[in-house]
Amino acid sequence: MAMLSVHTSPLHQPGTGDAGGMNVYIVEVSKRLAQAGVEIEVFTRTTGRDLPQCAELAPGVTVRHISAGPFEGLAKEDLPAQLCAFTHGVLGVEAARPPGWYDLLASHYWLSGQVGWLAKDRWGVPLVHTAHTLAKVKNLQLAAGDRAEPMGRVVGEEQVVEQADRLVANTPTEARELIDLYGAPLERVAIVAPGVDLQRFRPGSRAAARARLGLPERGRIVAFVGRIQPLKAPDVLIRALAESDSADVTALIVGGPSGSGLDRPTALIELADTLGVRDRVRFLPPQAGDRLADVYRAADVVAVPSHNESFGLVALEAQACGTPVVAAAVGGLVTAVRDGISGVLIDGHDPAIWGRVLDKLLAEPKRLAELSAGALRHAHDFSWDRTAERLLDVYGEAMTEHRARRELELAGCARW
Amino acid sequence: MAMLSVHTSPLHQPGTGDAGGMNVYIVEVSKRLAQAGVEIEVFTRTTGRDLPQCAELAPGVTVRHISAGPFEGLAKEDLPAQLCAFTHGVLGVEAARPPGWYDLLASHYWLSGQVGWLAKDRWGVPLVHTAHTLAKVKNLQLAAGDRAEPMGRVVGEEQVVEQADRLVANTPTEARELIDLYGAPLERVAIVAPGVDLQRFRPGSRAAARARLGLPERGRIVAFVGRIQPLKAPDVLIRALAESDSADVTALIVGGPSGSGLDRPTALIELADTLGVRDRVRFLPPQAGDRLADVYRAADVVAVPSHNESFGLVALEAQACGTPVVAAAVGGLVTAVRDGISGVLIDGHDPAIWGRVLDKLLAEPKRLAELSAGALRHAHDFSWDRTAERLLDVYGEAMTEHRARRELELAGCARW
Repeated sequence: MAMLSVHTSPLHQPGTGDAGGMNVYIVEVSKRLAQAGVEIEVFTRTTGRDLPQCAELAPGVTVRHISAGPFEGLAKEDLPAQLCAFTHGVLGVEAARPPGWYDLLASHYWLSGQVGWLAKDRWGVPLVHTAHTLAKVKNLQLAAGDRAEPMGRVVGEEQVVEQADRLVANTPTEARELIDLYGAPLERVAIVAPGVDLQRFRPGSRAAARARLGLPERGRIVAFVGRIQPLKAPDVLIRALAESDSADVTALIVGGPSGSGLDRPTALIELADTLGVRDRVRFLPPQAGDRLADVYRAADVVAVPSHNESFGLVALEAQACGTPVVAAAVGGLVTAVRDGISGVLIDGHDPAIWGRVLDKLLAEPKRLAELSAGALRHAHDFSWDRTAERLLDVYGEAMTEHRARRELELAGCARW
Repeated sequence: MAMLSVHTSPLHQPGTGDAGGMNVYIVEVSKRLAQAGVEIEVFTRTTGRDLPQCAELAPGVTVRHISAGPFEGLAKEDLPAQLCAFTHGVLGVEAARPPGWYDLLASHYWLSGQVGWLAKDRWGVPLVHTAHTLAKVKNLQLAAGDRAEPMGRVVGEEQVVEQADRLVANTPTEARELIDLYGAPLERVAIVAPGVDLQRFRPGSRAAARARLGLPERGRIVAFVGRIQPLKAPDVLIRALAESDSADVTALIVGGPSGSGLDRPTALIELADTLGVRDRVRFLPPQAGDRLADVYRAADVVAVPSHNESFGLVALEAQACGTPVVAAAVGGLVTAVRDGISGVLIDGHDPAIWGRVLDKLLAEPKRLAELSAGALRHAHDFSWDRTAERLLDVYGEAMTEHRARRELELAGCARW
């Protein structure tokens, strides 16, 4: 199968630039699909001079770099103008192969969905699309100071919803959004929960984790992990810290600037200065692999204050490490966190309320321990193996239906 | 042949929205190519519920409306996100035809060039592209308060320049810009001057024209014709009026708001108010056909103060009516106006200089009469018949070369 990921590569480090949970998703799912015998080619835009035309991500998973626009300096807003170029590259790869090389197209994010629409018709294969985020949802829950998503994206998403043979939603919430806001037909929406890497993200010594990351042994840590941009709302954690009564709490912000966060990359530091909590905020660049697990282990609580999340993989990773999560009650986070059992969900982003909830939680070691146990149990309901299994079912359905429809069309032609 | 005009339809009224000289170009050229026996299908985006799937523009010229995004409310900036949808529609029309239906693709403006790139490969035909305007040129000569063209367009244009079999430049200036700024290979650039409709635009009674338009019989009129946007600089004429000594001069502004001019459609009226010349400025909506010729006849002088023009069809139309033109010495206007013979070219946009030049000109009836005669002679060097003839040569060259290259490739395969 061909997997399309135009705007961000599975080879990128999540937590910086445009790379985030979707990159983890593509990597983990591709690996497991390949283990199940599916040959995967992931198409992504070339963003560096030294990138090879194709690279093996894992056995059976090839990443193909497609030239479409300059390697550097193109923002996500510039990418719609590059979709013809990208499509040209994708179609060129297929044209060099024997006919019928690909059986299925899976696209991630609307930009890829647009390319998938053209390739699907050309190749005569079904398209399974995963939106990951939706413009209409984002615009309804816009962070202060964030830019609304443009009409071009809204329309582009609507078209992909109309054209895809199957729409994969990460959560029931996302499925409802696809149906209510985008008019997706119920029978074409499949809910498939993302997973979490339970081998990498597992409980471990807090003291050892802090030592490895160079963090103080004592005191409490509330961690934020994600791209630094208004949508992810790391400022809410810093404001909550300023409202908090406990002086021994440190906010640990892990991630790099992204999207509209790039307009003022130092905004968070300035905010902490203004609020007089600069010495209680620590910043770390995006962390990979085991070091990321250490971040979750080092924290007493992980905060996910996003204005919107289609899922919120960070919340699940933290829980898999046994760390309770305090999250905004939006989008997929309502699924990713079980309120009162694996963490706490908060309505809205009022720093006073966030500060109070964090204070109360950190003052009750017994409750923290209970939530930690609940978090572990909850995380174990999710696994990438199960995600891949469910996806294989969805792919199979899409292919069967697509074949049946084509045969019907051909039969129709013959009768006529 | 398939002619691509994604963002503006040949059925639209020039002088409003995104319609301008390019629309006139496509209409006039298509008619004449059809008269020469070329079957033309013009593909453009559907912008109204009631538009038929196809319409006959003239014998042998069909306009095909392609659904790509909502009919209303999409700005030109939103169109890059609609290129996949548009391409899908164009490829669908061809797929319903016998193989080899089209022999040639001609694209107008970079958005169409992107679609042409994909269609060219799919159909195995050459692509002849006309840019009409170039982002790099526009950005070098940006009007105050106008927005720079985004990187996505610059890159998109570079790709089309690289992919097109022939690039049609309106003037030697545009050819040089394609070569110097976009790296176009000299041998692929063809200079083909646009024409002017000498039957419609011919001299006539000034008094009768003014009467038909409801303009005062007496006094002098300097007319501006074009879309109301910073690029076209109608404000320069109003500012020049305020600098002028002669109280009997009226500025006649003919056109509708467009592009970044839509941000503040009343800006020109406010400017005239502020400068105390509101009673000496008349506004008319875009005029069609014979009424447009009357505008040129009614004016003593036509002003074309644009910050950039790839050609400046208005200047040629005015001259064909025997009206001298005062124009900015930029882009194609240097070709469209012969300085001192058919009008006056001015460096820059200083209102004081523009006011002085207009005052001096209007005070010398003899010079005006000489320039009027020169304008008529100059305009008669241009005709759409000649434009169409030259284009047929360019199309023929592109097809011959393309066929030769394909045969060579096939021969290469056989030998290998």
